[in-house]
This record gives sequence, C-alpha cells and structure tokens, in this order.
Amino acid sequence: MMKPINDRVVVKPAPADEKTKGGIIIPDTAKEKPQRGEVVAVGPGKDGNDMNVSKGDVVLYGKYAGQEISWEGTDYLIMREDDILVILEG
Amino acid sequence: MMKPINDRVVVKPAPADEKTKGGIIIPDTAKEKPQRGEVVAVGPGKDGNDMNVSKGDVVLYGKYAGQEISWEGTDYLIMREDDILVILEG
Amino acid sequence: MMKPINDRVVVKPAPADEKTKGGIIIPDTAKEKPQRGEVVAVGPGKDGNDMNVSKGDVVLYGKYAGQEISWEGTDYLIMREDDILVILEG
Amino acid sequence: MMKPINDRVVVKPAPADEKTKGGIIIPDTAKEKPQRGEVVAVGPGKDGNDMNVSKGDVVLYGKYAGQEISWEGTDYLIMREDDILVILEG
Amino acid sequence: MMKPINDRVVVKPAPADEKTKGGIIIPDTAKEKPQRGEVVAVGPGKDGNDMNVSKGDVVLYGKYAGQEISWEGTDYLIMREDDILVILEG
Amino acid sequence: MMKPINDRVVVKPAPADEKTKGGIIIPDTAKEKPQRGEVVAVGPGKDGNDMNVSKGDVVLYGKYAGQEISWEGTDYLIMREDDILVILEG
Amino acid sequence: MMKPINDRVVVKPAPADEKTKGGIIIPDTAKEKPQRGEVVAVGPGKDGNDMNVSKGDVVLYGKYAGQEISWEGTDYLIMREDDILVILEG
Repeated sequence: MMKPINDRVVVKPAPADEKTKGGIIIPDTAKEKPQRGEVVAVGPGKDGNDMNVSKGDVVLYGKYAGQEISWEGTDYLIMREDDILVILEG
Repeated sequence: MMKPINDRVVVKPAPADEKTKGGIIIPDTAKEKPQRGEVVAVGPGKDGNDMNVSKGDVVLYGKYAGQEISWEGTDYLIMREDDILVILEG
Repeated sequence: MMKPINDRVVVKPAPADEKTKGGIIIPDTAKEKPQRGEVVAVGPGKDGNDMNVSKGDVVLYGKYAGQEISWEGTDYLIMREDDILVILEG
Repeated sequence: MMKPINDRVVVKPAPADEKTKGGIIIPDTAKEKPQRGEVVAVGPGKDGNDMNVSKGDVVLYGKYAGQEISWEGTDYLIMREDDILVILEG
Repeated sequence: MMKPINDRVVVKPAPADEKTKGGIIIPDTAKEKPQRGEVVAVGPGKDGNDMNVSKGDVVLYGKYAGQEISWEGTDYLIMREDDILVILEG
Repeated sequence: MMKPINDRVVVKPAPADEKTKGGIIIPDTAKEKPQRGEVVAVGPGKDGNDMNVSKGDVVLYGKYAGQEISWEGTDYLIMREDDILVILEG
Repeated sequence: MMKPINDRVVVKPAPADEKTKGGIIIPDTAKEKPQRGEVVAVGPGKDGNDMNVSKGDVVLYGKYAGQEISWEGTDYLIMREDDILVILEG
C-alpha cells in the first residue's frame, strides 16, 4: 500500500483508448491536454488543509503532472492534489 | 458532471460570432483580449476562501486562461476563479 | 453591467486630449507614465480586504495596467485595485 | 488633491541644487544614490498596516523609486512607502 | 546519531538491485524516477507543523532529492520531508 | 537626524584600516566579505516585528548591503536589519 | 563575542583532515557535499520561531552555506539556521 505524504495523491492513469460513459474527448489543439485517471491513495493534507479528492474518484489532471512509479506491476502517478483539475461523475 | 478542485471553475466558451445583449466587442489592439463564456461548474474554494462566481454566470476571462477539455461532445475550459475578470449582467 | 471579480476594477480611460480642472500633465521622461480614467465598477475585494476606490473616482494608473474590453460601444480597462496609483480630487 | 491607494505616497522631489540645513551630500560612487523629497500625500496603508511617514516629512528614497506625474504644473513621484529609506529631521 | 534540523529527514537509500515484497519497478520513461529508501532520522518539524514520516518508514523520493553524506561507513541522504512522495507498506 | 522607515537601519561604516579590540580580520577568499560598522539609527520594525539591533551596536554586514548617503559630511549606509549578520561585543 | 541577528548561527568549521568518533566521510560524488563544524553562537530566532541548534552542537551544513569572517585569529562562518542539515551526536 502507498501512503502519500502531505497533499500528494496517487493516481492510476486510464488507458489511452478507454472512454468514460460521459465520452471525454481531448480536443486536438495547441493547449496543454488534461489526462484522466482514478485516485487510488490520498495524503492527509498539508498545513491543516483538508483534501477534496477521495479514493475511487475519477479525475482529470495536467499532462505533465506527477511522477511515474510502478507498484506490483501497475503504473501510477504521484502528484499534488492541486495538480488535479476536476472530479468526473456519471 | 464535473466537480472542480479547490478554486477551479469550468467555463463553456461562447461561440466566436455570438453577441450578448450588451454587445461586447473586443477591440483590435496589441493588448491581451479577454474571452467570454458561461460558468458551468464551480469548485468549493481554496484555503477557506469563498467563491464569487456561480453556475450560470456569463464571464470574461484572459485569452490564455485555462486548459481545454471536451465532455460529452462540448468543449470547456478549466481555470482558476482568479483568471476570471468580470461577471457580465444584462 | 460588469461585476469585477475579487480586487478587480473596471476603469473608463479618459480621452488623450482631455484635461482635468487640476490640469494633469504627464511629463515627457523615460519613466513609465501613468494614465487617467474613471472607475465604473469595483469588485468585492480579495481575501477579506476592503476596496479603497469607489465608482466615480477619477484615478491614475500605470501605463501598462489592465486588459482592454469594449462594452456597449465603449472601451474599458479591467485591472487590479493595486494597479491604481492615486485618486484625484478637485 | 491626490489620495494615494494602499501604501502609496506622493513625494515632491527637491530641486537638484537645493540643500537641507543638515547639508545632505550624495557621494559620487558606483552605489545607487538616494534622492530627497517632501511627502505631500500618504495612503491609508495596506493589509491593515499603519503608515510611518506623514505629510510634510522630508525623506530620502531610491533613485529609481516611483512613477512621475505632473499635477497643476508641479512634478511629483508616486511610490510605495517601503521605497522610502529615511525621514530627515533638522 | 544524526538529529535533523527543522523538517529534514535522513534516509538510507535501498541498494539499486534490491526489491520490496510489493515489487516496486521504476518504469523506463523520460519522467523523473523516484528512488526508494528507509527513514533513519526525522527532524522536529518546521514552523509548528508536525512530521508525517517516522523512523523505519520505507519511502519513495525524487531522484534529485537530498544531499549525500557518509556516516560510520554508510551512505545517507538528507532531504526535506516534502521531498518524500509516499510511504510504502506491505 | 535620520529616522529609518520600517526595518531599516543607518550604519556608519568603520574606516578600512581600523581594528576592533577583538581584532577582526577579513580573510582573503572568494567568498563575500562582511564589513563592519556602527549603528547610528534604527527603524521601528516592520509588520509588528521588533528590532534586534540598537543604536551604538558594532555590527558586521554583507559587502553589498545598503545604499550610501552622506549626512553633515559623514558617509552612512542605509540597509534592512536582516542585512546585518552579527553584533560584535568586546 | 558575536551575537547573531535573527536566525543566524556562527559556526567554527572543522579542519579538513579532522575525523569525528563516528567517522564522517564525505563520499566523492557529483552531489553537493556537506561540511562539518561546531556552533559557537546562536541568534534569538526570527519571526517568533525558536532555534533548534545550541552552542556546542556539531553540525553538518551545505558546502556553499554562510559567509566567512575571522575573529581573534580564528575563521568562522555565519549562516542561517536552516542552512544547517543535521546535528551530530556521539
């Protein structure tokens, strides 16, 4: 199990060809494209601020957010909560 | 549904040729030109500060504000509330 | 109507050839030259700090302050209150 | 009349050849040379901090401090209070 | 014994070929690769904030985190707690 | 008399060939060499923090600290208190 | 005697060939190498934060930390407490 420090979050990125029920499509523009993934571990927060995301949330995050690790054969990203843009529902 | 994190806001940009009742026209100058859109989702705020914009507000924001995403066939921008300049009314 | 976000202010710039009763003349030097305008809308303040300018105030602001917009045929500047230097009276 | 915003101060620079009773002489070195002037208007302070200078104070300030304006035929500088170095007395 | 100052932590890096029970494998990508190690000393915290890691924790940290020292024949890294990404368990 | 603003301090630099009883000698290395002087005026402090130096203290300060002024025929440096390194005694 | 200002500390660096009982050896790598020394004077702290090091502590600090001075024939370094990495004991 991974216990993130402070305001860090562990995210399991969604496969590139996977689609949500809502049908997220990242447009082909010059702007930075957000990525989608599922939160698998959440830190306790930093400087007494609570965390807004929870384990199981499907989130969008910036393309260059986080550091890659591999744990028991699965790739994850470790990022700060503020690198997450939105939680997707439905 | 998209639930923004912290002080983030989801904005649906207005079509380039659309005009408000007030007749917003962006002048052709060297200065950065603000864009217009409608707020569709608002985060809970950051560090205990309340949010000033609400769902449904028509807003102006900086040209380079936010990250583009597409959700159920519609393009949106995800930005911080402070990237919004003014709320338009009437 | 424009409702500024946080500590933003909407200013209607004075015409270049207009003179106040006090006769403001910007000297021709290498220093940044402030501009004059009238405040037409004031935000609620940021992080609980009150605003010092009011609608109707005639103000000087830095030459490069703000973003230009056009609303109902009139050009405005949207800037942060701290970009304003002084309120002129008389 | 000019009412400075926040922690700003309006200073009337002393003529280059004027001397105070104390005989301020700026040495000719490579270091930035402070300038002398008289405070003519003081803002209310910023973020709840009081101002230390008062109208009528003769002050020294950094050579590149402030922005130049002309008001009723006189040149002034608008700067932040913290750009002022010392108040001169006597 | 080493007593870290403020929010600093002393980490004993794991040998490059060692594997945890969980089988951490760092993927071969262009992103910065985190490293694994064991916490051997923890500072008292900084500015009144408590520390989240404890002596004995196995942690991942950024590749360029910390400064190397050698103490009684063993190499260690001294880093700030916030350079640690996650605590590994199991 | 000079009354420094906020956390500023007026220092009268010691002559280059003067020696204290303690025999301060600045070594000839590539590092920045501190200078010695006597505090002649102290500001009220900034943001409610008290000042640690007093009028009459002999202090060391960084070589490039402060701005030079001349007052009644004597050269002084105006610097922030935090540019002072140590107070010398004895 | 030297009384450091705010959070500054005076350190007497250990001779390059000296060894502690614990046998500190700095490895020969590309990373910045910490140095060892003994604390001889400690400031009162900054902004109300207490100091963690005491006079007599043997400490490691970054190679480029501090400014060199010589006092009564001995070389010292003046640095901020946060430039110290660990206190060594035993």
